[in-house]
Amino acid sequence: MERLDDLQLSGLKIWQDTERFCFGMDAVVLSGFVRVPKGAKVLDLGTGTGILPLLLSAKTEASELTGLEIQHESALMAARSVEQNGLSERIHIVEGDIKEAAALFGAASFSVIVSNPPYIAQDSGLHNPEDALAIARHEILCVFADVARESAAVLPHGGKLFLVHRPERLAELICTLREYRLEVKRLRFVHSFAEREPSMVLLEAAKEGRPGMKVEAPLILYEREGVYSEEMKRDYGF
Amino acid sequence: MERLDDLQLSGLKIWQDTERFCFGMDAVVLSGFVRVPKGAKVLDLGTGTGILPLLLSAKTEASELTGLEIQHESALMAARSVEQNGLSERIHIVEGDIKEAAALFGAASFSVIVSNPPYIAQDSGLHNPEDALAIARHEILCVFADVARESAAVLPHGGKLFLVHRPERLAELICTLREYRLEVKRLRFVHSFAEREPSMVLLEAAKEGRPGMKVEAPLILYEREGVYSEEMKRDYGF
Repeated sequence: MERLDDLQLSGLKIWQDTERFCFGMDAVVLSGFVRVPKGAKVLDLGTGTGILPLLLSAKTEASELTGLEIQHESALMAARSVEQNGLSERIHIVEGDIKEAAALFGAASFSVIVSNPPYIAQDSGLHNPEDALAIARHEILCVFADVARESAAVLPHGGKLFLVHRPERLAELICTLREYRLEVKRLRFVHSFAEREPSMVLLEAAKEGRPGMKVEAPLILYEREGVYSEEMKRDYGF
Repeated sequence: MERLDDLQLSGLKIWQDTERFCFGMDAVVLSGFVRVPKGAKVLDLGTGTGILPLLLSAKTEASELTGLEIQHESALMAARSVEQNGLSERIHIVEGDIKEAAALFGAASFSVIVSNPPYIAQDSGLHNPEDALAIARHEILCVFADVARESAAVLPHGGKLFLVHRPERLAELICTLREYRLEVKRLRFVHSFAEREPSMVLLEAAKEGRPGMKVEAPLILYEREGVYSEEMKRDYGF
């Protein structure tokens, strides 16, 4: 069912389909982790219904935000949300394949890339490859190396890539990024509760960056069952 | 000044020299992170004054623990501590170079390796290369790739390597280990306080392990200034 949801930020609204893909906490925490220099051009690889460009339009001074999405229905819904919010001059939704991002946009065309890519490795878990939800979550149409390779091709020297992913994939993420000369410079783990293992990891990589990273203090979502942490209330408006 | 310290564990004592190298919290938390199967043979690469074999002799059912140390005075002190504790049958201190561990001990000679190697990259920070403390802390006589290469050569298929290191080196650690077919399977960050960034990271790697890791809940040292956390009291006797 299609539904227009309020993002509780600068009056933003987003179209979603409850039977297809709705944005999750991962996109929200990534939007708070990203650092966008004033006037920068930002690309979101696999934008879904456009949650990241929408949030970043309010949270940053990016001049232009482009969301690339392969699924036709998601891209349409993202474009409707952009129009609904009167952001057509700042946000562009492009229907296309992550694997062709460099061919589509050209070298050094964005100084910041963000992505909440499919998390689950191709060979693990059951899924229906026709399913819109499966395409968003499993590495069916695109694997992590595609995200790394295209990001490296699209970013200039020193350009930044911001990702949210699963902690269990961390070794692969870091080493695959390195293969494409994207060095992880900042890492933050996201935990539902302080004493639990992390459920997500946020990464910042720099193209041709020097080795050496900063692991930040953990981001804790809930103080206790049903009560958001102080940081989530302060920085994310929960 | 030489001093005999009480380890507050099974009556163990350790000789240390306050002007040279004294063991730190890193060795202590590593000893609690390590998992040693009953009867396993354990090698400590760069044992210093022998803190890890001493702690692991009490905390595990390892059949034999070998500490390799290149600095003559530290190795002597470690051997004295082993004797002092009546552990000469179970702990062996060997004076020698990490870079020659495989040549010294042979392939598949230990099923578990532990190490608290020099943390600080060769090219960063000032140090006096003659200084015993600098040798223990800086990568003067051995770099991380030496630890990875020798560990891979000494471990059998499925053998485990446990390390404590600095979070800022994490990308290098994970990718260097992978180059030697040591896959990081478990990671735990150590924070002085819950809301601070981590000061140490604990890693478990498996030789020829499959990709995929578990990031554990953070280890918090202090509940507040001067008061150890419940976990440190319960598991480490602080």
